[in-house]
Amino acid sequence: MNDPREVRRAIRHGEHSGHTAGLAPGYVQGNVCILPREYAEEFALFCERNPKPCPLLAASQPGEAQLPSLGKDLDIRTDVPRYRVFRNGERVEDVGDIRALWREDLVAFVLGCSFSFEQALLEAGLRLRYLEEGKNVPMYRTSIDTAPAGRFRGKLVVSMRPFKPADAIRAIEITSRYARVHGAPVHLGRPDLIGIEDLARPWAGDPTEVREDELPLFWACGITPQSVLLDARPSLCITHAPGHMLVTDLTNASLASP
Amino acid sequence: MNDPREVRRAIRHGEHSGHTAGLAPGYVQGNVCILPREYAEEFALFCERNPKPCPLLAASQPGEAQLPSLGKDLDIRTDVPRYRVFRNGERVEDVGDIRALWREDLVAFVLGCSFSFEQALLEAGLRLRYLEEGKNVPMYRTSIDTAPAGRFRGKLVVSMRPFKPADAIRAIEITSRYARVHGAPVHLGRPDLIGIEDLARPWAGDPTEVREDELPLFWACGITPQSVLLDARPSLCITHAPGHMLVTDLTNASLASP
Repeated sequence: MNDPREVRRAIRHGEHSGHTAGLAPGYVQGNVCILPREYAEEFALFCERNPKPCPLLAASQPGEAQLPSLGKDLDIRTDVPRYRVFRNGERVEDVGDIRALWREDLVAFVLGCSFSFEQALLEAGLRLRYLEEGKNVPMYRTSIDTAPAGRFRGKLVVSMRPFKPADAIRAIEITSRYARVHGAPVHLGRPDLIGIEDLARPWAGDPTEVREDELPLFWACGITPQSVLLDARPSLCITHAPGHMLVTDLTNASLASP
Repeated sequence: MNDPREVRRAIRHGEHSGHTAGLAPGYVQGNVCILPREYAEEFALFCERNPKPCPLLAASQPGEAQLPSLGKDLDIRTDVPRYRVFRNGERVEDVGDIRALWREDLVAFVLGCSFSFEQALLEAGLRLRYLEEGKNVPMYRTSIDTAPAGRFRGKLVVSMRPFKPADAIRAIEITSRYARVHGAPVHLGRPDLIGIEDLARPWAGDPTEVREDELPLFWACGITPQSVLLDARPSLCITHAPGHMLVTDLTNASLASP
């Protein structure tokens, strides 16, 4: 499926419930967070203060399931292939549709994801080892504090991709143009300086080899807001299930600054 | 002296014959290479093929001493405070004026210099240790080949500035916007991977400490074309003397891409 509307229609009608990786290539896929209104303002502020881990693409009005800036037909209650429901910070279930859970006070947030800048890296001829190995990108909790907002606070989570030095410079140049999807890395080289003890033991995802002539590059990761959100134990929080993203009508290229 | 025209006038009239560092702040200072026409086409091609070490800002017509794109009144025979004259690749003298040496077949090249991007680094709050220590930036010959053009060929020379990882990323982001003055670094981290054996022993300039929590960043250096030029032993070559640059009417800011 190459057209984002076609992808959303298939998901909406229960014809696709799997991962979205590789679907509608060239179009932005977003991380989803749905919260009751009483948390929404603080969460919006948290995103504003932490744009690298929380690049906000769109937020709905309370009770409104539409996000027209991301797709005219888009309905946040049906268009994600798999949702994860948390109550008081505890995961309670995964579901394929949240119409039954929808309430007039819910606000949907859609955040950018590294898929967008990874496309630009691949188009520039850079290689992503975790993709070539068919694994998930390794993620690490760091000692870097996010900027708190109300009840939301916590440590920055980063994803790691290894590159040779000249490619590392290219990767920084390219991703710095993608401020709306995490932007440039937050750190490179020495993991110990940001509280990562062992690259071979990621907090999430799979370990990726860093070869002798390579440097590890660390990008702010879109898991950060989820980790911060759940620590705040909101009465209700609905996210996409990992890898089951919201496919939007925005092109990755449209997110790049010139 | 804050105005570039004022600086050039003082130099032209012999009232200033020293270094140009700190003069006309905010304005581009250029590296100068003057060659007989028979070498000019190959040198222009060498610059085109090696834009990082040889960021060409302007070239004159043969025999013309004016470079109006860099300054309406500019005269390349009188407006550099100190010239260095080489014959067959050997340094023969330093002079304050080259009107007596001027010929109808000479072509002047002006290349961008790292002063321009260093201003942007300082304005972003980054610190340049060699400046704070009142030294010259350390320069190293690498094992990286330049792209040859006719008689011009040789190894890339780089300058080194140390930064902590987060500042290193900022420095790459900032200098990548200055493609007309060397652009982003060519290497970072491991000096041995580009043939530098000992950071404490630069090929030119002064050694600069790289602290335990820092990475060395390596930029293509404007000394590269001079080194390549002299290896080709042209019958005549006139350059600026180190630190005695051509002050132009271009602003550093005008060289940045958006």
